[in-house]
Amino acid sequence: MGTDPASDMILAFDFGGTKLAVGVASVGATTWRRVVRVPRPADSDAADNYAQMISLAREILAGRPPLVIGVSFGGPVDSAEGIVQKSFHVAGWERMPLAARLSAEFGAPARIDNDGNAAALGEYRFGAGQGCLGFLYVTVSTGVGGGWVLNGRVWRGRDGLAGEIGHVTVDPDGPECLCGGRGCVERLASGPWMARHAQDLLARHPDRGTFLRAAVGNELGLIDARCVALAAEQGDDVAQEALDQAAHSLGVGLGNALNLMNPDRIALGGGVSGAGPRYWRAVRAAATATAMPGISVEIVPATLGDEAPLWGAVALASEALD
Amino acid sequence: MGTDPASDMILAFDFGGTKLAVGVASVGATTWRRVVRVPRPADSDAADNYAQMISLAREILAGRPPLVIGVSFGGPVDSAEGIVQKSFHVAGWERMPLAARLSAEFGAPARIDNDGNAAALGEYRFGAGQGCLGFLYVTVSTGVGGGWVLNGRVWRGRDGLAGEIGHVTVDPDGPECLCGGRGCVERLASGPWMARHAQDLLARHPDRGTFLRAAVGNELGLIDARCVALAAEQGDDVAQEALDQAAHSLGVGLGNALNLMNPDRIALGGGVSGAGPRYWRAVRAAATATAMPGISVEIVPATLGDEAPLWGAVALASEALD
Repeated sequence: MGTDPASDMILAFDFGGTKLAVGVASVGATTWRRVVRVPRPADSDAADNYAQMISLAREILAGRPPLVIGVSFGGPVDSAEGIVQKSFHVAGWERMPLAARLSAEFGAPARIDNDGNAAALGEYRFGAGQGCLGFLYVTVSTGVGGGWVLNGRVWRGRDGLAGEIGHVTVDPDGPECLCGGRGCVERLASGPWMARHAQDLLARHPDRGTFLRAAVGNELGLIDARCVALAAEQGDDVAQEALDQAAHSLGVGLGNALNLMNPDRIALGGGVSGAGPRYWRAVRAAATATAMPGISVEIVPATLGDEAPLWGAVALASEALD
Repeated sequence: MGTDPASDMILAFDFGGTKLAVGVASVGATTWRRVVRVPRPADSDAADNYAQMISLAREILAGRPPLVIGVSFGGPVDSAEGIVQKSFHVAGWERMPLAARLSAEFGAPARIDNDGNAAALGEYRFGAGQGCLGFLYVTVSTGVGGGWVLNGRVWRGRDGLAGEIGHVTVDPDGPECLCGGRGCVERLASGPWMARHAQDLLARHPDRGTFLRAAVGNELGLIDARCVALAAEQGDDVAQEALDQAAHSLGVGLGNALNLMNPDRIALGGGVSGAGPRYWRAVRAAATATAMPGISVEIVPATLGDEAPLWGAVALASEALD
């Protein structure tokens, strides 16, 4: 093992809860030489996913050795040690020395980080965060997560848990969150909870939400965040109320992040961030109202979509070249 | 002008709202060679304070030139440019190029920062924050302010407003704050508001707060934060309620800072932080409940007291030597 000086190829992995992806890019490039994405097979475990990723990587490397390796992992990792702590979705990842294994496999140095940090770094280097000294990336989908990039480096914090904007308290008297807290951003602003809020409103108010009801043929359980966003755009009152509240809660959380860290920019990614102009207006209004006078409120869409973690893995790998 | 290589003396200034201080310390020292503190004369303006500081500095320098100069200023400054933006307490400071003036005056490079950042840096270098990669200093007195030191440097943010934990929202339905927000940490946890809360409780509940009432001879307007803390210690129910709520609000704000940045440590300074064990228990309990599982909650008393900004000025000046 050891870096191959003849290679300029960065090998990037994204071990997600529902998707696996591998890409190869040249040093300094902003497009892939090869990239492949597959759904994570149902019931597959860590060993299965690892084996599949190695095989995909060998395929796209086509016999050429990588110069460096970067990994985004969907769960808590010890980035300094290169060890996965666990996955909340996939069995068998506990204490896996993933960086060392990949390094031995491909004969190149490997760095790993969790997907929130990797996506933040990806957006910083290749997307919406370019040029920022202080940058916060936030993803809003099934959960709400994120990561900080400060002075060009991921800020991980003492326990590797920095950027947990999903568990910033918005309403201390609000509903209980899985984390044990109350009224967390995630509990109020994630896609599933926004949908659940709409369902609850419909159940309590039989006279409201005509459009949203019709859209799911009165099967309230079918309502998801996308439904809510679409119905809100069509003027449905229940959908708008649920959307506005989710957006407001997120905006208060972002405003608090602005007061604490005064970053140059916040980029929003994840499915819910595509909920349309009404959503963005409400997010920005709440963030502006929460931020101190004098604090710049710059909240923009993330630009790399699902590829943010994989590009982050490229950026992470590049750090081994500095 | 220009640095005098024969000198090893750091000249430090603290321009506060109520106090002025100047100190001289050798490079690397942790005690003063000379230090002098005076109350800021009532009705004095920027020109008066500046002239008095220069004269105090010349006195303690006794003809020897400083190597470098550092300044803590009680108000917003543009640290990169060395310019004071304004003071909320003292007239005449608008756009004063304080660093350049001091530099010309003493023939040595000068750096300035606001008092929250200076105190944070002081505690980081000489007090409760030593050895921390991520450190948050919070002061709780008339207001609630603070500063971040990350990787050994003050994190100022885009607009120089990072560390504004006083304006993190704790309760979005809470009372209005001077900043325009609602339920800010400062509005719920500062000394004057804690006292005001106790006064309101006494006015509303004639049967409660016997001890606290007696302590001020029934002159409710005389109740201040120190009164509340002392009465709470004596078991007064109203004082305890006001103290607990202030502590809880601060703790929620600190918990949010922990979730966002996962610092190694938070140090609390300012008069209210001396409110006793009950206060500290409530602060830590709320911070722990707000922080995610897995996040280290280390909240400790600041150790430099009123001298934190002046030692921060020393640390700031030392950066010119790096």
